[in-house]
Amino acid sequence: MENFKNRIRNEELLNRVVTAEEAASWIEDGMSLGFSGFTRAGDVKVVPRALIKRAENESFKVDVYTGASLGTDTDKLLAESGILNKRSPFQADPTMRKGINRGDFYFVDTHLSQVAELIRSGVVPIDYAVLEAISITEDGMIIPTTQVGNSAIFAEHAKNIIIEINLAHPESFEGVHDIYDLGKQGERNPIPLTTPSDRIGTIGIPVDINKIKGIVINNEMDSPSNIVPPDEETQIMANHLMEFLRNEIKEGRLTNSLAPLQSGIGSVANAVLHGLVESEFEDLEVYSEVLQDAVFDLLDAGKVKFASCCSITISEGKMEEVFGNFEKYKDRLMLRPQEISNHPELIRRMGLISINTALEVDIYGNVNSTHVRGTHMMNGIGGSGDFARNARLAIFVTKSIAKNGDISSIVPFVSHTDHTEHDVDVIVTEQGYADLRGLAPRERVELLIENCAHPTYRAQLRDYYYEALTRGGQTPHVLEKAFSWHTNFEKNGTMLEPVLEPIVIK
Amino acid sequence: MENFKNRIRNEELLNRVVTAEEAASWIEDGMSLGFSGFTRAGDVKVVPRALIKRAENESFKVDVYTGASLGTDTDKLLAESGILNKRSPFQADPTMRKGINRGDFYFVDTHLSQVAELIRSGVVPIDYAVLEAISITEDGMIIPTTQVGNSAIFAEHAKNIIIEINLAHPESFEGVHDIYDLGKQGERNPIPLTTPSDRIGTIGIPVDINKIKGIVINNEMDSPSNIVPPDEETQIMANHLMEFLRNEIKEGRLTNSLAPLQSGIGSVANAVLHGLVESEFEDLEVYSEVLQDAVFDLLDAGKVKFASCCSITISEGKMEEVFGNFEKYKDRLMLRPQEISNHPELIRRMGLISINTALEVDIYGNVNSTHVRGTHMMNGIGGSGDFARNARLAIFVTKSIAKNGDISSIVPFVSHTDHTEHDVDVIVTEQGYADLRGLAPRERVELLIENCAHPTYRAQLRDYYYEALTRGGQTPHVLEKAFSWHTNFEKNGTMLEPVLEPIVIK
Repeated sequence: MENFKNRIRNEELLNRVVTAEEAASWIEDGMSLGFSGFTRAGDVKVVPRALIKRAENESFKVDVYTGASLGTDTDKLLAESGILNKRSPFQADPTMRKGINRGDFYFVDTHLSQVAELIRSGVVPIDYAVLEAISITEDGMIIPTTQVGNSAIFAEHAKNIIIEINLAHPESFEGVHDIYDLGKQGERNPIPLTTPSDRIGTIGIPVDINKIKGIVINNEMDSPSNIVPPDEETQIMANHLMEFLRNEIKEGRLTNSLAPLQSGIGSVANAVLHGLVESEFEDLEVYSEVLQDAVFDLLDAGKVKFASCCSITISEGKMEEVFGNFEKYKDRLMLRPQEISNHPELIRRMGLISINTALEVDIYGNVNSTHVRGTHMMNGIGGSGDFARNARLAIFVTKSIAKNGDISSIVPFVSHTDHTEHDVDVIVTEQGYADLRGLAPRERVELLIENCAHPTYRAQLRDYYYEALTRGGQTPHVLEKAFSWHTNFEKNGTMLEPVLEPIVIK
Repeated sequence: MENFKNRIRNEELLNRVVTAEEAASWIEDGMSLGFSGFTRAGDVKVVPRALIKRAENESFKVDVYTGASLGTDTDKLLAESGILNKRSPFQADPTMRKGINRGDFYFVDTHLSQVAELIRSGVVPIDYAVLEAISITEDGMIIPTTQVGNSAIFAEHAKNIIIEINLAHPESFEGVHDIYDLGKQGERNPIPLTTPSDRIGTIGIPVDINKIKGIVINNEMDSPSNIVPPDEETQIMANHLMEFLRNEIKEGRLTNSLAPLQSGIGSVANAVLHGLVESEFEDLEVYSEVLQDAVFDLLDAGKVKFASCCSITISEGKMEEVFGNFEKYKDRLMLRPQEISNHPELIRRMGLISINTALEVDIYGNVNSTHVRGTHMMNGIGGSGDFARNARLAIFVTKSIAKNGDISSIVPFVSHTDHTEHDVDVIVTEQGYADLRGLAPRERVELLIENCAHPTYRAQLRDYYYEALTRGGQTPHVLEKAFSWHTNFEKNGTMLEPVLEPIVIK
């Protein structure tokens, strides 16, 4: 702890250092809190724990807003503690998920780029911003750690700010952030960013230091990512994706350096991106929300020349490699607020290639990213809507089956819609890819069944579609059977319909 | 016809004047055509008719892309002629609708801002652009008429161009258009527009005049709009909307001049906007795709100081008033390409208040704008997705019941999703309004049922929700009954469940 004085370079602030317990004691029943933290990176660690500890002897409720999901088991502990009234905009914790689906507390699933507008307009007030920082500069700027997330907007609009200075993050992180404030809607200028490497803002979050009520010191690394490594199937999916991209080059729509890449969180999207390491593509750029392991493999392989993001979420081994040698990566990286990493204006302008994971896809190309069987929340929509709606190429990846084949990812009717047919360009499974651009729903069906569905389910999908065709429409359906695959799974543990034995007349 | 020479001011082009029949004869089987026309305004009239005439003796198919819906019965005639292979991105004709739903031809429903990207990237090729114009300037610029739509992108990317010079439109229209070309994704700059009245481009569409293969003269006004006038219920809806807006002012989120307004096509949205004529709001601005009658009433009343749009679609009486006195309006109007009028970058930057019509809304706030009972296309998504996703306030209006009460617009589960819960801020019916911002699905239910649903259906909605709650989830549902209201309507002609007579034991 002796070190923290060179992390708090504004002398006025030195006497505001307090314990996590003291800082947590200021938070009152009914308050709305803004925590730093984006997909396990750069989350505040000790103040939330101290706050949760208070629940052992006290009864109170708070709303917790973040960048995205938290590490350090904070979402789990929040869910168990009973202090949550509302959580937004994203989480990825199994215990919290259960609490959400039981209705123990409210979860507001929100496009990650749009949280800032809700705060700026005052629809979502923030009483306390609790933000992890590398340091606070002489002029009172907060230097974030491994994420920017919503920290800047929380700091600007919170009544009070608590800082966790985290000594475990190297000081060399200073200078890698780019903080840009959009200002009010109706009074703002175009965002002056045209390529992923453009620097448009400041290296830290400018704040009114009078709002900094307390500073807590911690020394705890981020929780490493829990993605599973690429496997044979994900490599096959990457190969299908590359085949599609090569065809785009042949058609003159892309060059060998493609277009800035975005890849959603999760093992499949990471693995598909990893598949590019052994490709002929080069001089790639990344403009994404989270950087996972694959991007660092691509940086190491010299494939990616620059990566812009909002957080860095990597596995334990990668953390040592990257954070231990951060100078090696620093001039090829930039961390931005999630409002900027996910902004429609920039995604459309640069024409990103966007790769996100689907939970299920229907025969017309609508995508469910969030709700298991239409009701139970997995993680949240995250940034997938920000990217898919505005990207040059909105690509969704999913394995064609799950649960040993008892679930088909291609279904007659998605049980929840996050991305409508208008926003879905290409579907990739281990079976192949379907390029849906410019196609009408009835044209899409065939491609999705033949190229993407698992062979086990193709006949059953065709049966549904042929029956639906007798009813007519732009998107023919048999409404009373639209969710029969889902209800069948719930009842019988499988989406597969029993195959009738042929009746043999003796 | 003697007049057309001052409409074709580039002398080189004078000898390219041909009959509609000759121009139509150049179009070959399998070609892709780009017609001007946006919600009945500025559509090409005589070349399509001549092309359709050819179908009497010839067998051929074409794809027809437009700005949005066409007037002049062209969509009806196209549908009847049998020459359509594919139609995109929007239509609003009952005969065409039937053809789409029978599967006679393909309809590709597309966000109106995104058609241009598909053409620019070459996914959608254009063989012939057929564009209505006021005039062609000395330097070969095409001056559009009552719409810009996709005319600029068609002209830029088409192999050949046919112009219909329409003498019925006054020359005074010249100067009211603002044509801006975004350029390729990845190479483009920010769009330099920050308020609705900013002029950022040229007054006409610059083209390579070598591509202009023929010029046809016509003299036929646009088809007037077919909206129904405001009624008592729409005035009540406007009052609810104004109540909501007044509350936003009280909360400090808006001023008395609100924010640039967008209003979708259709009678209800027009009527709701008309309701502002008698309000206290002033110095309003409009940034919309279509200007309907209401905007001109607001201009006349001095309520709106500037209106930017992509087309002008007004009733017969209004046409005389407005086009007969166009100088009176000209300096308060601007017509832009639909890629600009509907661009996410601009909608988000200016923070529009967006008012669009919903077909049905579910208890969690998902909106269906397009498909009757999940299958049958009405008109298309149009620009509603461009606006709702990016607006400051995404407001959807609908009457709470239709078909004399046999259809409830608030349903358990929308039978098709165009706008997900993430993109829907406020629902307004004649019953009241529900402000859904910042709310979790379970919080939204109550507001939607109590404030927006028709009293006749409230108990039935509550019954569904209470049963759904026993299943749990972020968005509780009884999947096997999710579409029972729709199937009930199909079977029994009503969504109302029979009320069981209480059993009286004698």
